[in-house]
Amino acid sequence: MGVNANDRLLVKSLAQAVIKKLSDAVRLVTVGVSNRHIHLCREDMDALFGAGSELTFRNALIQPGQFAAEETLTIRGPKGELSKVRVLGPLRGATQVEVSVSDGYALGIKPPIRDSGNLESSAGITLVGPRGQVQKTQGAIAALRHVHLDPDSAALLGLEDKQLVALEFGGERSAVLRNVLVRVSTQFLPEVHLDLDEANALCVRSGDIVRLVLPGEL
Amino acid sequence: MGVNANDRLLVKSLAQAVIKKLSDAVRLVTVGVSNRHIHLCREDMDALFGAGSELTFRNALIQPGQFAAEETLTIRGPKGELSKVRVLGPLRGATQVEVSVSDGYALGIKPPIRDSGNLESSAGITLVGPRGQVQKTQGAIAALRHVHLDPDSAALLGLEDKQLVALEFGGERSAVLRNVLVRVSTQFLPEVHLDLDEANALCVRSGDIVRLVLPGEL
Repeated sequence: MGVNANDRLLVKSLAQAVIKKLSDAVRLVTVGVSNRHIHLCREDMDALFGAGSELTFRNALIQPGQFAAEETLTIRGPKGELSKVRVLGPLRGATQVEVSVSDGYALGIKPPIRDSGNLESSAGITLVGPRGQVQKTQGAIAALRHVHLDPDSAALLGLEDKQLVALEFGGERSAVLRNVLVRVSTQFLPEVHLDLDEANALCVRSGDIVRLVLPGEL
Repeated sequence: MGVNANDRLLVKSLAQAVIKKLSDAVRLVTVGVSNRHIHLCREDMDALFGAGSELTFRNALIQPGQFAAEETLTIRGPKGELSKVRVLGPLRGATQVEVSVSDGYALGIKPPIRDSGNLESSAGITLVGPRGQVQKTQGAIAALRHVHLDPDSAALLGLEDKQLVALEFGGERSAVLRNVLVRVSTQFLPEVHLDLDEANALCVRSGDIVRLVLPGEL
C-alpha cells in the first residue's frame, strides 16, 4: 500500500506547521544580564590568589559548566577602581575583564565593544588580588551583546554561528537592538547576554524574555 | 498676465521638494546626554542652601534659559547615596530629581520612567545640602527619553506636542528606541535627551546626531 499524493501533501503541511510553531517558540529567549566580571588564565590566578590556587564554586550560571566563583578582585584603571568584581569559572586560556561602557568612564579606560576572546588591542587594566597584582596591557572589553544557541535551536531558526540578529524589547523602554552576535555550540543553552548599561537602558532583568528578529526581517 | 496651470504645477512640485529636503534635515537631531541632576523649588532651595539663597550660574544648557548651577547636593536612598549631583536652574514649581535606573539600584529606590513634571507617586528621596536636608516623599524619576522641538521644526515633521516617535542609532550598538516623547514649545531648540544608561548602552555622547523616525514609519 503506497502513500498517495494527498497524504504526502498533508504530511508536508503538518510538518511545516509544526516547524513554524517550534521556530516561533525558539525565537523567545531568556535574558541574562551580566554585571562586570573577570575570566582568569592559570598564570594570573597563580599571581593573584597564590600558586596552584583553585576557584571556589559559588553558583552555576545558565551556560553549562560556567559558574560564579567566591573569588572577587579589584580592577584599577588610571581614573578609578571597582572592587568586589566577581571572577567566573572555569579558568580560560587568556584573562578577560568584561566591563560596561559606564564602568570604562569610572575606570578611565575605553573598553572596545568585542565578542568574547577577541582581545587584540583591547584596553589595559590592573587586577588586584589578595596575593598580588597583575598589570594587563590588554584584556578589558565591553562585551558585544550576543545570543547563545544550541545547534538544534539555531537550525530551527536557520541561523549559523557568528551571524548577526536583532532583539525586540517591549515595555516602556521599547526598542530594537541590532548587531546581536549569534554563538552556536553544543555546549550552549539559548540565552541572550546583555551588559548592565543595556539592561538598565531597556528596563530588563535576568529572566525576562526577548524576541529574536532574524536577518531580513528588519 | 495670469499664472498658467503648468507654472502652478512647477511651483507646487518645487515647494514639495524643498519641504522634503527641510524635513529630512530637521529629522537629524543633536543628542544631549543627561547625567543625574536636580531641579529645586524655592522652598527646598531655602532649606538646603539657606533662606533667600540663589543658584550660581555655571554654564548654559542647549535649551534656552536652562543652566547648570555651581551648586551640587548629595542624594540619599535607603541603600546608598550619590554625592556632587548637579543642580540645574532656574528654580521650578516642584523639586524633581532625575536619576538613571542604575542610580536607582545604587540608591535602593525604584524611580518610575516619567516625563518631566509628572511626579505623582514617584520615588521618595533625601536631599542633603550645606545648610540642611530635605526628605521628599516623592520627586525622583528616571526621565522618559524625549525630543525637544521648536514649533517650526515640529510642523515640518507633522508632529505635535506629546506624540511618540522613535530614534534610529547607527554604529556598533545600532538600535531603534521607541516611545520617545515629543515636546514642542517656542522655548525649545531641537535636542534629544537620553540618560546615561541609554547613552552608554548605545555608545552615544552629547553632540552626536540621531535620526527621528516618525509615527507610521516603523
